[in-house]
Amino acid sequence: MASQLVTTRIVLASRPSGKPVAANFRLERETVRDLAKGEVLLQTLYLSLDPYMRGRMDDAKSYAKPVEIGGVMEGGTVARVAQSRNTAFKAGEIVLSHSGWQSYAISDGSGLRTLDPGTAPITTALGILGMPGFTAYAGLRNIGKPKAGETLVVAAASGAVGSAVGQMAKIFGARVVGIAGGSRKCEYLRQELGFDAAIDHHSSDFPAQLAAACPNGIDIYFENVGGHVWSAVFPLLNDFARIPVCGLIAHYNEESSVLSGSDQLPVVMRAILRKSLSIRGFIQREFAEQRPDFYQQAGAWISEGRLKYKEDIVDGLENAPEAYLGLLEGKNFGKLIVRVAP
Amino acid sequence: MASQLVTTRIVLASRPSGKPVAANFRLERETVRDLAKGEVLLQTLYLSLDPYMRGRMDDAKSYAKPVEIGGVMEGGTVARVAQSRNTAFKAGEIVLSHSGWQSYAISDGSGLRTLDPGTAPITTALGILGMPGFTAYAGLRNIGKPKAGETLVVAAASGAVGSAVGQMAKIFGARVVGIAGGSRKCEYLRQELGFDAAIDHHSSDFPAQLAAACPNGIDIYFENVGGHVWSAVFPLLNDFARIPVCGLIAHYNEESSVLSGSDQLPVVMRAILRKSLSIRGFIQREFAEQRPDFYQQAGAWISEGRLKYKEDIVDGLENAPEAYLGLLEGKNFGKLIVRVAP
Repeated sequence: MASQLVTTRIVLASRPSGKPVAANFRLERETVRDLAKGEVLLQTLYLSLDPYMRGRMDDAKSYAKPVEIGGVMEGGTVARVAQSRNTAFKAGEIVLSHSGWQSYAISDGSGLRTLDPGTAPITTALGILGMPGFTAYAGLRNIGKPKAGETLVVAAASGAVGSAVGQMAKIFGARVVGIAGGSRKCEYLRQELGFDAAIDHHSSDFPAQLAAACPNGIDIYFENVGGHVWSAVFPLLNDFARIPVCGLIAHYNEESSVLSGSDQLPVVMRAILRKSLSIRGFIQREFAEQRPDFYQQAGAWISEGRLKYKEDIVDGLENAPEAYLGLLEGKNFGKLIVRVAP
Repeated sequence: MASQLVTTRIVLASRPSGKPVAANFRLERETVRDLAKGEVLLQTLYLSLDPYMRGRMDDAKSYAKPVEIGGVMEGGTVARVAQSRNTAFKAGEIVLSHSGWQSYAISDGSGLRTLDPGTAPITTALGILGMPGFTAYAGLRNIGKPKAGETLVVAAASGAVGSAVGQMAKIFGARVVGIAGGSRKCEYLRQELGFDAAIDHHSSDFPAQLAAACPNGIDIYFENVGGHVWSAVFPLLNDFARIPVCGLIAHYNEESSVLSGSDQLPVVMRAILRKSLSIRGFIQREFAEQRPDFYQQAGAWISEGRLKYKEDIVDGLENAPEAYLGLLEGKNFGKLIVRVAP
């Protein structure tokens, strides 16, 4: 019976040159094989779409292997155990997995985490209580280290990481300025999330607005964007400012061979020296031992109403490529998730 | 009688545009006024010449105020108390001061540190047991954090900071590769200071030589140079590499308006993200509370013969400008010091 089951999957058809397009993806169908002993069959319920996936589409050396041409696109998922030949998992259980862009996947159980749907909505395991939320927590705790009264700036501030960064920094006592695209997102940051200020980076006088919103300069810039946002932030950095770098979405589509403009590196290095700046790239799993602290803290903050989250849910795996291309252009509003099965 | 005394001083005649020239300096003479109560008259014995002074010649915003046009050039000095109306200092004592480029100076005693000529040669207070030595110590202890078996690279490696960095990193168990200009300096690093390798950055195949000397990549790059040395180091940086930045001598003469070439900043920011790099600018006085540890440790290492130093002593204050211009081009060999009085 299981052999009749068909999985739908989206594979990397070709590597993008610059900005990805729909033709870089291909939808395929395949019959699911029978389970071997120790394996589980996972039915994907939700697929997380995240900026880091752009890096996996290139074959450049990075902290993770690229997706192979013809390989299933990588991604975090929430899945239901449809069948189990592994004593650690029972059919019907909900797990956090990394099955990628496909409707069914077979796993040997390694790396799966059982979720309790009674504790929190299962989609939160992909967002506020998952990798993005922990990225915010780990970056603040280990690198940003906000102190009461300091000014923190975060871009993509209505997104999964940015919204968590801003709210956690508020909890730690910082003054928080968010940068987002469009007045709707900015209003959300101020009204719903309690940011002290929110600036639309599409405004023609964006740098001046940012400077006005940071009268005491910037002590922490949580970098996940780069590009013209960095250019506006850079002159406002205070002595001893900390810059955790967890993403650079504005640069993911750049080809280094076509970079133009004068070389800003010496200017930035001199500022690093003159202002004793600290710039530190990180991937959340470096701080994996802090995950239990995070689950406890973030869970408490959510139940106290101090940590809010917004999800942008798209229906149907076949719509994942279009949704992902929109994410790279900031079209989503909140954590972008694909509902793969009802 | 004191009113007959004449001080010779070198003032900033004009701000350099790019590379400083002799005409940016002017030698002046002035009669020394009588001491007020609480003051001491200092006769400069030795003047320290250091790369950071280039920054003081510009009027750009930095961690320290620029020297005013017509003002005495700033600098660390070792001086003899020639007269004293301050009960804390006796005539004839030797002190570490910051009198600048002049033969006599009046001080109210603040910031002076009495030196014991019996403990160490007094010139070491300007080098290995002074600001350059402590820069090496503080940068390694707080930022570089070398672990046994890691590879550390330092440029300007025969200079005051670089030679201390390399030797201390050896003491901490790291493999040390020094970069210097010319075969004489490289031989000194290998033969006298025990560096594992030394590379001449004037070699036409310098990047390839550096790569060959770092078969396991680079874990710590102690940055005090920038420019083409950075370019050779950058691709060799390992994941989690640390880069303390205490100087950028290759860029001090650059005018940001004339920078050309493609923008390397996005390339570097992406590497910071992909490799979890840490770049941290610092000025040694941030870690001032560690100075007692440093004096004790470095003193012990010197007496055990594990920490060596080389001084390049130039005679006569009038020769300070030329010596300083040479320093910016790497012409000195060891800590550059001017003997102002015999």
